[in-house]
Amino acid sequence: MQKDKVFIYDTTLRDGAQAEGISFTVNDKLRIARKLDSLGVDYIEAGNPGSNPKDLEFFERIKMRPLKHAKLTAFGSTRRPGIKASEDANVNALLKADTSAVAIFGKSWDFHVTEIIRTTLEENLNMIHDTISFFKAQGKEVVFDAEHFYDGYKANSQYAMKTLEAAAEAGADWLVLCDTNGGCFPFEITQITEQVLKKFPIPIGIHCHNDGGMAVANSIMAVEQGAVQVQGTFNGYGERCGNADLSVIIPNLQIKRGKSCIREDGIRELSAACRYISELANLPHNERQPYVGNSAFAHKGGMHIDGVMKNRHSFEHIAPELVGNERRILMSEVSGRSTILKRIQEVAPWVEKDSEETVLIIDRLKQLEHEGYQFEGAESSFELVVKRALGKAKTFFEVKDFRVLCEEHWQNDYSASAIVKVKVDGNEEVIAAEGDGPVNALDKALRKALEIFYPQLKRMRLTDYKVRVLDTTKATAAKVRVHIESTDGRRFWGTVGLSTNIIEASWDALVDSIEYFLYLNGNAENGDICD
Amino acid sequence: MQKDKVFIYDTTLRDGAQAEGISFTVNDKLRIARKLDSLGVDYIEAGNPGSNPKDLEFFERIKMRPLKHAKLTAFGSTRRPGIKASEDANVNALLKADTSAVAIFGKSWDFHVTEIIRTTLEENLNMIHDTISFFKAQGKEVVFDAEHFYDGYKANSQYAMKTLEAAAEAGADWLVLCDTNGGCFPFEITQITEQVLKKFPIPIGIHCHNDGGMAVANSIMAVEQGAVQVQGTFNGYGERCGNADLSVIIPNLQIKRGKSCIREDGIRELSAACRYISELANLPHNERQPYVGNSAFAHKGGMHIDGVMKNRHSFEHIAPELVGNERRILMSEVSGRSTILKRIQEVAPWVEKDSEETVLIIDRLKQLEHEGYQFEGAESSFELVVKRALGKAKTFFEVKDFRVLCEEHWQNDYSASAIVKVKVDGNEEVIAAEGDGPVNALDKALRKALEIFYPQLKRMRLTDYKVRVLDTTKATAAKVRVHIESTDGRRFWGTVGLSTNIIEASWDALVDSIEYFLYLNGNAENGDICD
Repeated sequence: MQKDKVFIYDTTLRDGAQAEGISFTVNDKLRIARKLDSLGVDYIEAGNPGSNPKDLEFFERIKMRPLKHAKLTAFGSTRRPGIKASEDANVNALLKADTSAVAIFGKSWDFHVTEIIRTTLEENLNMIHDTISFFKAQGKEVVFDAEHFYDGYKANSQYAMKTLEAAAEAGADWLVLCDTNGGCFPFEITQITEQVLKKFPIPIGIHCHNDGGMAVANSIMAVEQGAVQVQGTFNGYGERCGNADLSVIIPNLQIKRGKSCIREDGIRELSAACRYISELANLPHNERQPYVGNSAFAHKGGMHIDGVMKNRHSFEHIAPELVGNERRILMSEVSGRSTILKRIQEVAPWVEKDSEETVLIIDRLKQLEHEGYQFEGAESSFELVVKRALGKAKTFFEVKDFRVLCEEHWQNDYSASAIVKVKVDGNEEVIAAEGDGPVNALDKALRKALEIFYPQLKRMRLTDYKVRVLDTTKATAAKVRVHIESTDGRRFWGTVGLSTNIIEASWDALVDSIEYFLYLNGNAENGDICD
Repeated sequence: MQKDKVFIYDTTLRDGAQAEGISFTVNDKLRIARKLDSLGVDYIEAGNPGSNPKDLEFFERIKMRPLKHAKLTAFGSTRRPGIKASEDANVNALLKADTSAVAIFGKSWDFHVTEIIRTTLEENLNMIHDTISFFKAQGKEVVFDAEHFYDGYKANSQYAMKTLEAAAEAGADWLVLCDTNGGCFPFEITQITEQVLKKFPIPIGIHCHNDGGMAVANSIMAVEQGAVQVQGTFNGYGERCGNADLSVIIPNLQIKRGKSCIREDGIRELSAACRYISELANLPHNERQPYVGNSAFAHKGGMHIDGVMKNRHSFEHIAPELVGNERRILMSEVSGRSTILKRIQEVAPWVEKDSEETVLIIDRLKQLEHEGYQFEGAESSFELVVKRALGKAKTFFEVKDFRVLCEEHWQNDYSASAIVKVKVDGNEEVIAAEGDGPVNALDKALRKALEIFYPQLKRMRLTDYKVRVLDTTKATAAKVRVHIESTDGRRFWGTVGLSTNIIEASWDALVDSIEYFLYLNGNAENGDICD
């Protein structure tokens, strides 16, 4: 049976960027757009070129390697009162974005027309009509976002409907009903959406905000009525309490309601994609987020654990694998132990459940996690911890000493210098390097020193460097955790370092990363830790 | 007009404590119970004495100073199969809690009866009947929690209804319908709740989990049908994705649906109460939480800011004061010219929209933001940018030079040292300090040097330090942005620094922070930038 299609319209890069704490670079936006495209999202609203000139750079750059599936969409308002659409600066900025689809938002609530943009109700209808006609004449697919539609309908249903009529007559391809202030109830969405669907043959979309904590439910109620486009953001980012969370709506519709939203494979990548976007937004991932949070399938109560062990349906609404997530059993010594054991056995297959080594490693791991280490995404550091605890680590090099110097008035391009002393097979080398900051200087000096002994290190480079301040209230004396990702061109691996001194934390992660590379590339007998 | 009463049944201390990361002490529980009582919550389910003996200590201790309004409730399961209720250890533990109300949960889903607790469908009905009869004979108010009721109804509606009948016949005071796995849709809740309400004259309650992201909406749909008790937790804590969030349901019902849930005054204390509970749970407060989050009424987009300035209804579903929250206006590139102008005018009231200075400052701001600066939460750095651009900055001190040295094998507690040279009114001072890492060492040295000239600096301290790596793919050569928050005990202010060198970025934010403090506390004539 053919599944009903519901079009997913993502605005993480536009409405999502209006969330407190988010400030995407153009590179962040390009990376997120490609990730969403790979999942099979249908529309990507990527910016408002009229109000934010930086967004034009995004639209320029993405043209060099166009998206495969998603339609790129630029967002902007109707023309200003009293001028022609073609004379309006925002309208022209929208054109410059050169996208096949544009989203035009207009006022549907009479109060907003008279009190906020301060024009007449009649002129507002003209503004909607003219702007959409203008873009239709340019051959664009036009999405009309009826801002505050539900509040507008509640205040003056006749006028709210007229704004949709103006858009429809001008040729809008979509009428999108917005709960902009996010305060509507599901039964209101149902009733009002039904009225619109009765009247217009044009496909209807829904755009909800979460101020009442019901944006997901409200979006779904509109789809149940017959809306065929859902607008929202990944991780629910957006103004105030956020937009409707597509990471929750998509599995609700596709897994449970038989709708087709994104690629069938894409849904299995949902958890990873959401974490990737959290990382780029530099916001902690919401662990309790439905479907994709780290705790979404974490069982803690004794009866719950007993239940899922007997039959997963007992306390899981879906199988976590369907969205690329996993079951976790908390607070249970035995099951916690078996998970860690599995990871230890990847490094040392001979170790058993009751081995002395297992107890030793689990104790060490608990101590490290208590101090603030986190090995998720830093599995290579974890493997090295296991090797060291088992006395199976090979000494590729010893670091005898390092010093870093930063000076405000450094005389050339570089602001820091480092001196590193290493010892390999009895030979000591002292090497200095300059860099952009102390960590970069240390990184360069360490490689220069080690490349003398291991020329294959030239193939390795760092691809990611992240810093988390653990207890921000301790200000500059707080512990920091550094995550580094590296590659040799074929494989990627992550390592972690922790210290109150950011230089030391970075240094530890760097040393782990190089040591891991040498395991992968230095010696065939250590092939067992390659992945 | 008398408002319809909806009873609020809080289980933060029982179901909430099953959230990952929560581990309440008995003292925490006592403090939370008193806070909920002061708000006017009707029932407080405080523990499961059968499965968690520590909970009995809570019930003992709270008797010494009983709650004023809320009914304390102990939670436990029906008796085990094949024995008398009076012989069951859990039942007896429940009695020991000595509360006027008890909540008894029983299985309503046939699959759970046969597959999880592994008894006959008939015996399960006896277990429900016997256990409730036992507690009614003891004079207790009995709340029957029909676990997995909705999933049970979908699988075998006849049997699910029989479990309610067994409870009703035994004299249960409440029938509470649970969506234990949290995967139901609002229209399912509506339809199934309606069937129960038609059949039973006993008051009905609703207990939802949030695995589909719809627990708030589902609870409200049940109330719209006629349910008069809502179970949930503050901040939505609970197993997996959490329970229905009472902090959102209460204002939805009481402010918007004309229901009476908690004290009218209590609702104005909601934001503070939720933050208090986050503190005791030792979890970061969810900033995007509807109604009570820090961002719930934070406006960032330019048109949003313009709108709320003209009329708050334009982008706020309720007045933030109603729940003890407040409006916040954020500063960023998307916030528009008029917001920036307002900010500029706070520093320089004589500047106008079209002044040459305005153009100059906005250009400077855009350039800085393009480089990676972000002034949201760092408004003090922005004020200093404005002062400098206008040539109105006062030179409190000049930094002549700084050096930082980090050594791996430093011999004492500190891993870094810094030397700072400052000049104030023609006097130079060179001061050194050690610290936990280079930034901490610089921070200490700078203060030591400046306190000679400005002893009032002893009153200032840093309260927050955050690091964001901007383009993580440039690894250790990437730009980093540092945000610092400081306080003088009365006010808080934020500053920002940016560099490829984390030491320099931190240094710039530090220097701005101290300079801003000196504006606030150094000189009365500069009072115009105080807020």
